[in-house]
Amino acid sequence: MQWRELETEPCSLARALAVVGDRWTLLVLREAFLKVRRFDDFQRRLGIARRVLAQRLGGLVADGVMEKVVYQERPIRHEYRLTEKGLALHPVVLSLVHWGDAHYAGATGPPVLHRHTVCGHDFRSVLTCSVCGEPVDARAVEARPGVPS
Amino acid sequence: MQWRELETEPCSLARALAVVGDRWTLLVLREAFLKVRRFDDFQRRLGIARRVLAQRLGGLVADGVMEKVVYQERPIRHEYRLTEKGLALHPVVLSLVHWGDAHYAGATGPPVLHRHTVCGHDFRSVLTCSVCGEPVDARAVEARPGVPS
Repeated sequence: MQWRELETEPCSLARALAVVGDRWTLLVLREAFLKVRRFDDFQRRLGIARRVLAQRLGGLVADGVMEKVVYQERPIRHEYRLTEKGLALHPVVLSLVHWGDAHYAGATGPPVLHRHTVCGHDFRSVLTCSVCGEPVDARAVEARPGVPS
Repeated sequence: MQWRELETEPCSLARALAVVGDRWTLLVLREAFLKVRRFDDFQRRLGIARRVLAQRLGGLVADGVMEKVVYQERPIRHEYRLTEKGLALHPVVLSLVHWGDAHYAGATGPPVLHRHTVCGHDFRSVLTCSVCGEPVDARAVEARPGVPS
């Protein structure tokens, strides 16, 4: 399997990775979830080459994960906002951050704390089942083909 | 920021990406969650070059995400199993699969269905708050530095 074939592979993970399976792309998304919107702010915070950043943001816009919106008319200025499809990546980014917290935080603790504004507490993310609401353990999941082949 | 600096960057996502921020690595993990354990099975299912697969599996073992275990003595044979640290990546992989399902499944529906053996139903994953148990919306999360700088 070559990377250019990933988009057509019958696996949702492979298709998802064709869109966000790049470290810079995931770091750009992290910044977007921290409410960064402007090209120069992404650039400064990530220390990323402008050409690479333009490429990644352009890809995310092309894939409908972010949208480029005019926020000022004279001179014209754009910012990048997560679309609903982009916001739906939040569980991926947050799960990966919390996994990093659990295994790489070191003695000083997590570098970033997340507060759930609904209940007002710092929290960890817990993946649960949409049907029964219980936490989902990897050992309690059975996978089977969904499309007759 | 260069990739070699990612491991020392004070961000859990960056540190996590230094371990699993590679598309092949994530596809290897997907297979592992589908209970694939043997080198030849990974190789056949992914169509990946043996050298690349050995590299990725070796990296995952070095990072404590998988372990290489003897399952047969004569001749000696190894298999690769997820450790607890590796199993803890399940929310990341499952969230990404379900995001792919939601946005790229097409008319035939998701290529893989997941059944929660606790309740017996096919499910979607829902990210919830460890404190109040409610679903976590990206807009309901506030991030702040956790380490005094």
